[in-house]
Amino acid sequence: MEQDRMINDYKKQNIEDIKSYYLQKADENLPKLNKTLIVPNVCASALNRGDTFVLDLGNHYVGYFSFNMWFADAYIDAPVRMSVRFCETKRELEDDYTDYHGELCESWLQEEIINVDFPGEYRMPRRYAARYVKVNILRTPKKISLSDFKFEAESGADTAALKPFEITDDELGAIDRVAVNTLKNCMQRVFEDGPKRDRRLWIGDLRLEALANYYTFDNISLVKRCLYLFAAAERNEYGILPGFVYENPIFCSGSWFLIDYSLMFVCTLCDLYSHTRDTKTFHDLYPIAKSILDVLDATKDDEGLVTTRSGDVFIDWCQGLKKGSALEGIYLYTLDRWCEVLESIGNEDDAALYRARLEQGRAASRKYLYDEKKGAFINKRDEYQNSVHTATWMVLGGVVKGNEAKHILKEVISSPDSVKPFTPYMHHYTVDALIKAGLMQEAEKYIRNIWGGMVKMGADTFFEVYVPSDPDFSPYGDRKVNSMCHAWSCTATYFIRKYGFGKPLHNTTFD
Amino acid sequence: MEQDRMINDYKKQNIEDIKSYYLQKADENLPKLNKTLIVPNVCASALNRGDTFVLDLGNHYVGYFSFNMWFADAYIDAPVRMSVRFCETKRELEDDYTDYHGELCESWLQEEIINVDFPGEYRMPRRYAARYVKVNILRTPKKISLSDFKFEAESGADTAALKPFEITDDELGAIDRVAVNTLKNCMQRVFEDGPKRDRRLWIGDLRLEALANYYTFDNISLVKRCLYLFAAAERNEYGILPGFVYENPIFCSGSWFLIDYSLMFVCTLCDLYSHTRDTKTFHDLYPIAKSILDVLDATKDDEGLVTTRSGDVFIDWCQGLKKGSALEGIYLYTLDRWCEVLESIGNEDDAALYRARLEQGRAASRKYLYDEKKGAFINKRDEYQNSVHTATWMVLGGVVKGNEAKHILKEVISSPDSVKPFTPYMHHYTVDALIKAGLMQEAEKYIRNIWGGMVKMGADTFFEVYVPSDPDFSPYGDRKVNSMCHAWSCTATYFIRKYGFGKPLHNTTFD
Repeated sequence: MEQDRMINDYKKQNIEDIKSYYLQKADENLPKLNKTLIVPNVCASALNRGDTFVLDLGNHYVGYFSFNMWFADAYIDAPVRMSVRFCETKRELEDDYTDYHGELCESWLQEEIINVDFPGEYRMPRRYAARYVKVNILRTPKKISLSDFKFEAESGADTAALKPFEITDDELGAIDRVAVNTLKNCMQRVFEDGPKRDRRLWIGDLRLEALANYYTFDNISLVKRCLYLFAAAERNEYGILPGFVYENPIFCSGSWFLIDYSLMFVCTLCDLYSHTRDTKTFHDLYPIAKSILDVLDATKDDEGLVTTRSGDVFIDWCQGLKKGSALEGIYLYTLDRWCEVLESIGNEDDAALYRARLEQGRAASRKYLYDEKKGAFINKRDEYQNSVHTATWMVLGGVVKGNEAKHILKEVISSPDSVKPFTPYMHHYTVDALIKAGLMQEAEKYIRNIWGGMVKMGADTFFEVYVPSDPDFSPYGDRKVNSMCHAWSCTATYFIRKYGFGKPLHNTTFD
Repeated sequence: MEQDRMINDYKKQNIEDIKSYYLQKADENLPKLNKTLIVPNVCASALNRGDTFVLDLGNHYVGYFSFNMWFADAYIDAPVRMSVRFCETKRELEDDYTDYHGELCESWLQEEIINVDFPGEYRMPRRYAARYVKVNILRTPKKISLSDFKFEAESGADTAALKPFEITDDELGAIDRVAVNTLKNCMQRVFEDGPKRDRRLWIGDLRLEALANYYTFDNISLVKRCLYLFAAAERNEYGILPGFVYENPIFCSGSWFLIDYSLMFVCTLCDLYSHTRDTKTFHDLYPIAKSILDVLDATKDDEGLVTTRSGDVFIDWCQGLKKGSALEGIYLYTLDRWCEVLESIGNEDDAALYRARLEQGRAASRKYLYDEKKGAFINKRDEYQNSVHTATWMVLGGVVKGNEAKHILKEVISSPDSVKPFTPYMHHYTVDALIKAGLMQEAEKYIRNIWGGMVKMGADTFFEVYVPSDPDFSPYGDRKVNSMCHAWSCTATYFIRKYGFGKPLHNTTFD
């Protein structure tokens, strides 16, 4: 079998040779960045020290900013010092950066102090993610005029390739448009998590971006590139992948090993195969995927449930969340995707092996994680915490089905006491669970509530974190460092387009 | 006559055509910038937030700074924010820029806050003047290492062309070396006044740089370029030149019209002719020079002395200085240079005309500006102020000679009550007057006192302002904005080399 050959190769060959091969494949799939020039029709004349103005790019973009500085009356006989702030949302225009108290490095805040020596064109060298640009003249010897503002937007997505899509529903149409914009702006040299902050390849984000991508820009090459990059990563002692990798200017593995994200690598590979029937890539990456599933199998406890022995677990940014059952659900969900692909390519032996593990895990989950009396996944393992997360993953893992699944999901989502998701990443899987349980109306309502809620806030792109009851929530201790265009929030377009929510009317295109 | 033809052309032709011609000649003489790579052998390892270090370039240079940033342990997962300060002198390393209170734009202070996104080479885009570079890590997510520091120095001077020079005297040797370095670092696209601040072409600086240049790098082309640039400048309603022009990125006239600097344009042209016998350039610029002298003649008062009706007068940064007599002296000094050149080229008619004016001016100066009883140039016109400035220019203008001149200069320089020069620009002319009066020992002592004083302070280049009794003096209200490498301070080398102070031993060269 092709896969067995790869596994044998993997065992026999020098690991550095394999890594080189994966990196070479990643390089071959480096996207050409498409450029769009945004030219706000503004001229800021006769500016003096203390003058401030705001440029509105009309939408959220990722790219490079330049302008022309000229003298208003007399030649500028000293450098002009200005601050330039790039804001993803209007609110950031007024934020006070001096009181920043987040855990992440303050340097993520997109503000520069520049000194411009000469009249003429000035191009800022860094890449920014912004809808608004706020300029503040800090020091100038004379009045100046700023004009010819240009924002050269870049994306690995080819907007001309965006699949045509029509929808009658205004709200869902708006959601689709914002979701596509989010995805577009996160598609760069890799599927970035957020173009403002982190700006790197995370597995969890990659999986959701890839799904949304198949229904929109359909850039297959970029998905392959990202999978090969993770394949080249250094895994921990158990074989768990790092949650992220860096690739610019050199490839470098991340140092946070996430079990659930490693499983999502397997899901992403399965999704790619289902979408493309690309057996070459599947076979190339088969050894990595298989070994991750085998690592999980090896960590099972006496009850036959996977443990967190091999690494950390993310699930969601939700505070205080108990993650044991959710991880089991993700494992089962991944096994399900894996078996489906193995059966599809005719690898009956492996399919049978992993399907047996799947059924064993489902049975153990039902036995040890489900409280039939309560009709909920409330269990000792998770300190009797009732969370949407656990219910979502148990449904997606196929532990419960039909009316039982419907009931569990409805109850946990509507319960005032249950733990709810904080991130659109987790919201995605809850919508997916609702759809799997056949709760199409509830799924649509959920989409309107979460993604529609962000649209009502004026979003041009979807946020990293969205907690309707706590709009200032930040996993990092300060809202100002939150990413307001975040990859894992882009999947509303996937649901809307795949499941046909709404009816034809709106057309999501880029000019 | 050739000059008459130019004057007629000047009157007949469209003034814009003439300006274009001058600018074209200036362009033809744009220097190639010579590059020298300074590589401090330093690696700053495992830097964390708050860490600071200083690079010593070993000498004062003008150019561009770059370095390599790399991660110490783990990949740098956020931009690294640092401040980079460029210091001409050691003292500036510890200056507090937040309390800057000078009149000039604070943006002249050479400090940047940069955000570096990726490991690898980082090149700062602006030009700096510095011996020391101080780096302060403001924000970093991880420990970083900085290495491969490079300072790419630039100069319009070709150090290989530096005239060989030997001198036995240690102090004068050091003074010569620092003076040559000052000149070298001010020689850029034009003879700049200071590479840290202003960075532009002033007539007063040009004249002194050109003189020093003839004895050192002897870049004739750069002198011509600068004269043509001033020739293209817009003069005021009287015909007085602006004290400075800009030429990058476009030519632009300054807006401060200085009578004494306009006269220095004439002197610079005469010096160039005397040094090169280049009649073409002299004839090209003859109309400008002649018209400036005629403007002065037209502003004479009833006593036959020039007035300040046609513009401002600089003379020196000395506070409270009365400038009337000094301006007359500069006028006479210029007429003297002018007549010498006219006679040398055989323009007898013009020579006679201007020599008559010179003699008339000298007589009037002696009559109205000199107090024979006091043996000093103390007069009503200057509110009976006794200044080194006036004495200097009266001697240089030939109003007094011989023992009389010697006595006047000695008295005014040694007097505790006289007004003394603040700038090496004015010090230059005082030394020149001492030499003209035959006071060679006093001239040497003056050079050792002023330029030697700066060398004792550790100067790598000579300062814009040097007041031995008030080392913190600034014409701009804050020492921090003073230029510590200033063109008009470079002429110690001119005196030492021209008049043979000291004896052979030291050799001023650049490695």
